[in-house]
Amino acid sequence: MAVNPILVEVIRGDMVESFFRGAYVVMDTNGQVIDAVGNVEREIYPRSALKPVQAIGMIESGAAETFHLSLAEIALACASHNGEDYHVHLINKWLARLGLTCEVLECGIHASMDKETAFALARQGRDLTFAHNACSGKHTGFITQALHLGVPIENYTHIDHPVQQYVNRVIEDIIEIDIKEAPKGIDGCQVPVIGMPLKNLAQGMAKLAHSQSLGPVLSQAAQTMVVALQTHPGLIAGTGRFCSAITQESKGKIIAKMGADGVFAAILPEKGWGIALKIDDGHLKAAEVALMGVLKKHHLLSQDSAWDHWASPPVRTWNHQTVGEFSFIAKDLKK
Amino acid sequence: MAVNPILVEVIRGDMVESFFRGAYVVMDTNGQVIDAVGNVEREIYPRSALKPVQAIGMIESGAAETFHLSLAEIALACASHNGEDYHVHLINKWLARLGLTCEVLECGIHASMDKETAFALARQGRDLTFAHNACSGKHTGFITQALHLGVPIENYTHIDHPVQQYVNRVIEDIIEIDIKEAPKGIDGCQVPVIGMPLKNLAQGMAKLAHSQSLGPVLSQAAQTMVVALQTHPGLIAGTGRFCSAITQESKGKIIAKMGADGVFAAILPEKGWGIALKIDDGHLKAAEVALMGVLKKHHLLSQDSAWDHWASPPVRTWNHQTVGEFSFIAKDLKK
Repeated sequence: MAVNPILVEVIRGDMVESFFRGAYVVMDTNGQVIDAVGNVEREIYPRSALKPVQAIGMIESGAAETFHLSLAEIALACASHNGEDYHVHLINKWLARLGLTCEVLECGIHASMDKETAFALARQGRDLTFAHNACSGKHTGFITQALHLGVPIENYTHIDHPVQQYVNRVIEDIIEIDIKEAPKGIDGCQVPVIGMPLKNLAQGMAKLAHSQSLGPVLSQAAQTMVVALQTHPGLIAGTGRFCSAITQESKGKIIAKMGADGVFAAILPEKGWGIALKIDDGHLKAAEVALMGVLKKHHLLSQDSAWDHWASPPVRTWNHQTVGEFSFIAKDLKK
Repeated sequence: MAVNPILVEVIRGDMVESFFRGAYVVMDTNGQVIDAVGNVEREIYPRSALKPVQAIGMIESGAAETFHLSLAEIALACASHNGEDYHVHLINKWLARLGLTCEVLECGIHASMDKETAFALARQGRDLTFAHNACSGKHTGFITQALHLGVPIENYTHIDHPVQQYVNRVIEDIIEIDIKEAPKGIDGCQVPVIGMPLKNLAQGMAKLAHSQSLGPVLSQAAQTMVVALQTHPGLIAGTGRFCSAITQESKGKIIAKMGADGVFAAILPEKGWGIALKIDDGHLKAAEVALMGVLKKHHLLSQDSAWDHWASPPVRTWNHQTVGEFSFIAKDLKK
């Protein structure tokens, strides 16, 4: 197996303490590679970075229209959210409109991805519910689609369930893989994960960025998903989180979606580009820094110091003294 | 730079999702390499894996005797503990004996390294103090040594302070490096970190394992430190933590000490061996799995399924279904 180059390093004091290898690829809608570094043919699990595609399945099926989903609800279907009050409130309202409660969600329960939110809820003595799960929007989307298809809700996370079968056909269309042949696994929230070459993920994102390249129904669904995330960047993730900040600060020109274990997918509607990125070892912060590096390299960020915090996050002591930083390194990068 | 081999991979369903490169070296007291994989000459920061050496400085100076430190207190000086009640209680008692409170500690405040402990404290509405910091024992040790040396306590974390100067001479003796020339940085708890080749760290650990190889005073101090950790493995880390479990379950035949950013140092008193290990990207769980792999490879673990949980930790969904595992891989390992 070819060794991926170092994309990010952590400097502490006088030396590099740790470093992160990985691969990324930037593509346009015509399937043209703009930039590729590392092994972009290797199969990866996109994890939550695929949520926008899964949400398109729900929209394209007609479920979003039947149940009058708002743009906020569609954004939540794409989200790995913090389980902050405004996320949970919207999920519970959506479920109530379906005549359900969050007990039907098969995603399990976990503490918020945002430490401050997690500790705040614990300090307030609040009980976590299925609606607090970062993936509760995607799950509510699957249930909405089950109702629309007129099939039982139970086991909607199973790969043989009609909802997953439907969504998988949409994934096959957009990502151009044969799911029957693809490696498969189960995500932390119980939903199937499908292995796919990093390059296919990038190309799929490019299609979503310039959705005219899809058929008319898929194209319309993709546009709705993009507008939903542009309108509600805070719902993709939440306070203090990278995906929300990037989408908001770029005014929707960059829609960034993380996936667990070091994955990023980005949709650039204005450029018609898609980006996919995976850090070999799965480190989320390194993936954020790498994506910032790629965006900077291709002059996709405004000249604005607001980005610095994400591009080169500081390493701090518990007394808040800066003693190092993460940084994207270009020295191994050959086009 | 030579690329380190893959030591650990994470399998999810049908494929490897993420993988971790790194280096390790096993040495005996005579400076003989028993096993070395990857670049073991590369300088790393040992971070908290060096605490046992720093504690030896305190013992060797006479501070431990002057202030009648118990074996439990010496174990805490080597610890990255959870800040559980029994850790915090002992630290505060130790400080009270010195006529001080934990306000003098310069380590800062952070939530427990153990998630359950962290959330339990938050749910109970308890305020975190400096004594809860994982490094509060090391810091109390430094203060004890300052009092013994008759120097001001203030700025005891600064590299020019007499305590750090004293401890650095002990590090130079045991690790055989020239600190003036070594790369330096500052740890999360504000104490200096010194870069050193991985091999030197392993050799230092081998000396502590068979302390007759040191001069008589250092040898006595090293033996005291080893006995302290063998007697109080729960104080090294705490409930649910790797270092405590391995030291306890091996009945003190393996003293394992983690350092932040993927480091392990291990002392094997019965064998007279030392081990040092670093995962390139700093992943703690991968470092634990790699150390287990090395211990297994050299037949240092009893035939006991109690180790399985540490050797191949499962990847679970939020519903607690096992969907993958971490594993040590030997395929890249050439002696």
